Amino acid sequence: MSAPVFRTQVPEGVRDRLPGEAARMRRLSAQLDGVFRAWGYREVATPVFEYLEALAAGAGKWARTEDLYQFFDRKGRTLALRPDMTTPIARLVATRLAGEPLPLRLSYFAPVFRHRDLRAGAASEIWQAGVELVGAPGEVADAEVIALACAAVKAAGLEGFRIGLGHVGIVEGLFQFAGVSPEAEAELKEAMVARDLVAFEHGVIRAGLSGERADLLLGLAHFHGGFAEAQERFGGVGGQVAEALEHVGQVLRLLEALGVSEQVSLDPGLVRSLDYYTGVVFEGYLPGIGAPVMGGGRYDNLLLEFGAPLAATGFALAVDRLLMAQERNGCAAAGEGLDALIACPPGREAEAMAWAARLRAQGLTVEVDLLGRSGEELAAYARARGAARVLTPEVPSIH
Amino acid sequence: MSAPVFRTQVPEGVRDRLPGEAARMRRLSAQLDGVFRAWGYREVATPVFEYLEALAAGAGKWARTEDLYQFFDRKGRTLALRPDMTTPIARLVATRLAGEPLPLRLSYFAPVFRHRDLRAGAASEIWQAGVELVGAPGEVADAEVIALACAAVKAAGLEGFRIGLGHVGIVEGLFQFAGVSPEAEAELKEAMVARDLVAFEHGVIRAGLSGERADLLLGLAHFHGGFAEAQERFGGVGGQVAEALEHVGQVLRLLEALGVSEQVSLDPGLVRSLDYYTGVVFEGYLPGIGAPVMGGGRYDNLLLEFGAPLAATGFALAVDRLLMAQERNGCAAAGEGLDALIACPPGREAEAMAWAARLRAQGLTVEVDLLGRSGEELAAYARARGAARVLTPEVPSIH
Repeated sequence: MSAPVFRTQVPEGVRDRLPGEAARMRRLSAQLDGVFRAWGYREVATPVFEYLEALAAGAGKWARTEDLYQFFDRKGRTLALRPDMTTPIARLVATRLAGEPLPLRLSYFAPVFRHRDLRAGAASEIWQAGVELVGAPGEVADAEVIALACAAVKAAGLEGFRIGLGHVGIVEGLFQFAGVSPEAEAELKEAMVARDLVAFEHGVIRAGLSGERADLLLGLAHFHGGFAEAQERFGGVGGQVAEALEHVGQVLRLLEALGVSEQVSLDPGLVRSLDYYTGVVFEGYLPGIGAPVMGGGRYDNLLLEFGAPLAATGFALAVDRLLMAQERNGCAAAGEGLDALIACPPGREAEAMAWAARLRAQGLTVEVDLLGRSGEELAAYARARGAARVLTPEVPSIH
Repeated sequence: MSAPVFRTQVPEGVRDRLPGEAARMRRLSAQLDGVFRAWGYREVATPVFEYLEALAAGAGKWARTEDLYQFFDRKGRTLALRPDMTTPIARLVATRLAGEPLPLRLSYFAPVFRHRDLRAGAASEIWQAGVELVGAPGEVADAEVIALACAAVKAAGLEGFRIGLGHVGIVEGLFQFAGVSPEAEAELKEAMVARDLVAFEHGVIRAGLSGERADLLLGLAHFHGGFAEAQERFGGVGGQVAEALEHVGQVLRLLEALGVSEQVSLDPGLVRSLDYYTGVVFEGYLPGIGAPVMGGGRYDNLLLEFGAPLAATGFALAVDRLLMAQERNGCAAAGEGLDALIACPPGREAEAMAWAARLRAQGLTVEVDLLGRSGEELAAYARARGAARVLTPEVPSIH
């Protein structure tokens, strides 16, 4: 007997997590939560859906609202699945946490939802873990969240984590210096988000740029080097660019004191797709994972959308990419096997269940066989479930 | 500056979880997962939304589909937020877990979503923890999930858990014996779900019942007593009723062997609002919590909706009611205070951060002050955050 297709399939972009994967996700969540708590961050949770109007306060800055899953409440108001956690947490901070001592250090582990271009096989239900540090401007706060991202990835047992660090002031200042039109700037930023150097170079040509102005922009997109090189190449532009470089330099020095500077590289051409960033921006990578496993930055204006003029910085980790990296690195699943399988011959059910209860009280993982199996059938099931022992509640016998 | 109302409010029926509450929920989740694993149950997760058609396979049996939050994918197919976990897990078992050794013992901790009558202040985003035991018919499986519910509530540190145990065969058989019309039966069952004895008695009168038939139904709704009383009162009806009583009696004997029979009372008039149950049904209560904290039962036909003819039984715990009970019982929150707050005078930021890193490496929870506070201001913040110590990275001095 077969059931209709839409009854047995899940929509594109979402998926089930089978035994094993769900346990690995629970373990990762505990690993990250442990680090976040050690740094003074406290977990919060917000509803899976809320008023579109609230979500659009942040999302409207970077996503078309048609990228949100929208529906209605019974009074006809528009609801939407949250497309990120930063915006709901900003709302929470501005409302129910208003008046709490600052800064607020908050963390989360939760799914967000976005209509995606499904040709790319992208996820529509995206699990994220992250932190928001609200009410603390300055380099120390920026350095803290970057160092915390490093500590979190390390706690997940993953090596080779690398962060690219930029600042919106560098990019904005250079565009301003180059005198690029808003249209050309939007096109060029899009190419930078996608790290599409060919599109970027075409954009520079189409924008009619040449000489020093073109060189500066091309140098931004192609930059490789350290802080000194960046100072040398872009520092002379002065103004916003110099200020941003100065800020980034201080963050880098703090990260050096924390012993994580080897993991952090200057990436002055880094542009994130979220338009709400106002200061440092950063992305994190792991070997063998082709997309960023972490992204974040400073967003000092978002809280104002909810009536609270508070500086803020934070990051989000891509849970599924971390899980993929854990699997590739051979971080084995948490033990899924059984310590014992209790056979349950007809008439001995109560005894079998009581045995199981006693063994569980000793901390063991124990299953009672519920299908009355014996002999090879029982042994095969025990092997399939990884049972270390099979116990049979019978009068002791020699077989 | 104030922000628009719908930007700062969340919809009725959903809510934020502040620091502390989110940590308590994480702890409860770990407590329950630990017990589920000890009994051989493995966690799974399904998408927050999926095709309405899949969800309606189970939900269509008990809820009007207008109780589901519905929206559309980009191809115009109808999606909905899941209103329960049992149906998606049934789909999962019938598809991606088909061919796995039986029985399948699965668990979850997840939110489900239902449009509610908001006058009652009911939640629309409802967190549940539970198990499904698939592929095991019979009394032993029923006894296992009931005993597991007892163990789970105990692991959550909660005393006084009581379960009412019934069987759809008792109620169905008595209605059949009484010769009640389908309309009257629906009305009477609704009164039984709501435990509205007055409505039930009116229903019996309106159904034109009298004599033994009325007495049996009224006796069902008013039943107080043990298994022997139930046998005496209803056993004579025979057929389905006698079979159901026999089954319930065996479950009770198994629970006695497991030492949890004191927590379980016969409740032959128990009717659950979900229409997919086919065997035992049960609900669990805690002192001081006015609504069931647990509900479940056997549903041997649901898997067939997805093409798999498999017996199944399970339960769901109401996470927020357990949290409420934990709070009332004084199960204190997991330690939220800091072990140390590190002051961060201007110019000593790197040193303060390095101190914090060393202390965290020793397992301590440590915050760096990011607002350059000193003196009474620093002390006040330390008190507000529950910091056990305040450390200042300065050249040692006597003040």
